[in-house]
Amino acid sequence: MPVVRATRRVHFCSAHRLYREEWSDEKNLEVFGACSNPNWHGHNFVLEVTVEGTVDSDTGFVTDFRVLKEALAERVVGDVDHRNLNLEVPWLTGVMPSAENFAVAIWDRLADALPAGVRLHRVFLRETENNSVEYMGPGAG
Amino acid sequence: MPVVRATRRVHFCSAHRLYREEWSDEKNLEVFGACSNPNWHGHNFVLEVTVEGTVDSDTGFVTDFRVLKEALAERVVGDVDHRNLNLEVPWLTGVMPSAENFAVAIWDRLADALPAGVRLHRVFLRETENNSVEYMGPGAG
Amino acid sequence: MPVVRATRRVHFCSAHRLYREEWSDEKNLEVFGACSNPNWHGHNFVLEVTVEGTVDSDTGFVTDFRVLKEALAERVVGDVDHRNLNLEVPWLTGVMPSAENFAVAIWDRLADALPAGVRLHRVFLRETENNSVEYMGPGAG
Amino acid sequence: MPVVRATRRVHFCSAHRLYREEWSDEKNLEVFGACSNPNWHGHNFVLEVTVEGTVDSDTGFVTDFRVLKEALAERVVGDVDHRNLNLEVPWLTGVMPSAENFAVAIWDRLADALPAGVRLHRVFLRETENNSVEYMGPGAG
Amino acid sequence: MPVVRATRRVHFCSAHRLYREEWSDEKNLEVFGACSNPNWHGHNFVLEVTVEGTVDSDTGFVTDFRVLKEALAERVVGDVDHRNLNLEVPWLTGVMPSAENFAVAIWDRLADALPAGVRLHRVFLRETENNSVEYMGPGAG
Amino acid sequence: MPVVRATRRVHFCSAHRLYREEWSDEKNLEVFGACSNPNWHGHNFVLEVTVEGTVDSDTGFVTDFRVLKEALAERVVGDVDHRNLNLEVPWLTGVMPSAENFAVAIWDRLADALPAGVRLHRVFLRETENNSVEYMGPGAG
Repeated sequence: MPVVRATRRVHFCSAHRLYREEWSDEKNLEVFGACSNPNWHGHNFVLEVTVEGTVDSDTGFVTDFRVLKEALAERVVGDVDHRNLNLEVPWLTGVMPSAENFAVAIWDRLADALPAGVRLHRVFLRETENNSVEYMGPGAG
Repeated sequence: MPVVRATRRVHFCSAHRLYREEWSDEKNLEVFGACSNPNWHGHNFVLEVTVEGTVDSDTGFVTDFRVLKEALAERVVGDVDHRNLNLEVPWLTGVMPSAENFAVAIWDRLADALPAGVRLHRVFLRETENNSVEYMGPGAG
Repeated sequence: MPVVRATRRVHFCSAHRLYREEWSDEKNLEVFGACSNPNWHGHNFVLEVTVEGTVDSDTGFVTDFRVLKEALAERVVGDVDHRNLNLEVPWLTGVMPSAENFAVAIWDRLADALPAGVRLHRVFLRETENNSVEYMGPGAG
Repeated sequence: MPVVRATRRVHFCSAHRLYREEWSDEKNLEVFGACSNPNWHGHNFVLEVTVEGTVDSDTGFVTDFRVLKEALAERVVGDVDHRNLNLEVPWLTGVMPSAENFAVAIWDRLADALPAGVRLHRVFLRETENNSVEYMGPGAG
Repeated sequence: MPVVRATRRVHFCSAHRLYREEWSDEKNLEVFGACSNPNWHGHNFVLEVTVEGTVDSDTGFVTDFRVLKEALAERVVGDVDHRNLNLEVPWLTGVMPSAENFAVAIWDRLADALPAGVRLHRVFLRETENNSVEYMGPGAG
Repeated sequence: MPVVRATRRVHFCSAHRLYREEWSDEKNLEVFGACSNPNWHGHNFVLEVTVEGTVDSDTGFVTDFRVLKEALAERVVGDVDHRNLNLEVPWLTGVMPSAENFAVAIWDRLADALPAGVRLHRVFLRETENNSVEYMGPGAG
């Protein structure tokens, strides 16, 4: 059976801040610019998760999009939507919530939460209108 | 000369929270849902500002888009981008930063900051992928 | 208090067919083209519903977007998503399901199902990438 | 019968330049900026044309989108796509090809080329990602 | 000469239904949900086809986009636009018309219908606003 | 540290023409169609540049998006925005300005202008609403 990729897109809204506690405000501002604002800022994140697998001969599905949607809701969106990424997400504790680190953490949340026979292929995260990142997993690059 | 409308779109990212101090946390949660999160959340706002005026016979412009862009940067974007709408924007002090109130406040920031001969027609604000508001000014509705 | 408009966008997928029983297949094909295909075709409709009202001084809302979303789900989306507009929607019985008639019928479904103090302003319906219609209510035009 | 608006969107690509022959290069550069470049520049214009009329009781159409598409192709797109707006479009001769003037000229091309019973409501023209204009006709404003 | 990929995007509107005749209605509903509706539903599919090849030193083209557009029209769009994927498309007979199977079938329609020197790289198919699939060919995965 | 890709999107507007001086007007028209128009045409190009690298443990960045934005402005956008690709861009002299060749030339402009530790992964260029190209570098294909 052919191998096909399926992508589910979701949206969520979060607050975050980029800064290092051990750095001065000046250094944080120099390195992170307005993203270091102590009063936070936020984004409408667009997340696209792509899984890959063989097409099931009965259903014609790589995976049921409803199952993928539920996995995303349960493992990611429910934890981060209308939340503060620095303060309220257990699986981001101690992680600088840059788009890059956020994408890697989302990968780790999802990699072992997918149905049998489907592997995670790509986590794509759009942070602003023109800035986005993607992570292809620990073996890539 | 014909009357034409010109629209400039800009993007900015802010944090905010919807809540009333005099209400209990329970009531805030009931009325505002996840938007009342004490740890903030945020959005990539999309703002479209439309002005209306007669076309200049020399330039063919209702207004120079560069001037409109500068007015938006100076009067709105510079104050709210990567900022906390509840805490850091002088012209939102004491204002519940709902999309509706935010749009009205943006109107008030811009209405008297436009070049002579051009009037503000519409402030459109997209807060999430599927939710948006528009304000046509104090005489409308 | 200022009058502001709030717009909620939803998506749904339906099948339909444009044809008149009393016309021959040839005439249906001539008038409706490929849209008259007896075996149906379908669309991802994009629906934007705009309501207008004064901003509530406590909440800063014209209407709670959650309430608007629920009204759309209950009165429209639940009836038409993954449905056949010619065969399965009680409030479209006997209605040619053109985008225009569909928009008018959606208006009629929503006009008296909105919270007190909010009036329906606009129903916008995108049928294909480049074709859309809007209806402003029975008093417009 | 209800009055509904129907909108057709089309895309075309053109070159143009904003400048006045009687002005010096310096003045043209000052007023029009990079848009005055003597070697031209160009855009992917997005044009949305909205017509308004009563819904036909037989077809459910305000107008057949195929007819609207043909009118746009014949009266506008065929003349401007992959053309130079300053040099090659008879109905723009002597017109400063700003987005505003271009929208007004498109209105004039279309107003009397529409089927009986349908009136032109709006010409919307997007020139760049973030700049657009709209013209509602000679009676508006 | 460098190897470059060129992508052409097209849109079409189809009806379909996901179900297995040998299964009960209950099982079809359980597995396929609303997609098993016996009265069909439909989508505005967005198809992006990517080909890869060396750049021609005379034209600067990997392939003439007009040729690619024609191949897509002739081999795919003409067969499926405003059609029922279960009933009317010869090359989908006996195929469960899931997005995955549809993408694979489109690949097979196109792989040997491309100009010499160009190979098919990717078939991407968006079925709904947030669900899409891609197929990279029989050797991939 | 994980390897992540970061993408920056920018927009610019240019004029160009596809033709070969040594060919007759007829042959140019036959091969390039309307793109060979002697009076030029133009596009709103959308450029997405993707770089790849390990995530910095201090910043969580693959690269500072501000640095990437500046590199794009300095090496590409400043040279081509509101310019004629055939006449005014030193690094396109003698190059047929097809989307393919343009993408390869952008790669060459950027490959050695990126910060240490980051490698160029992909140049994606959208020329029209439905036509785009991508170049993955000299080793790809």
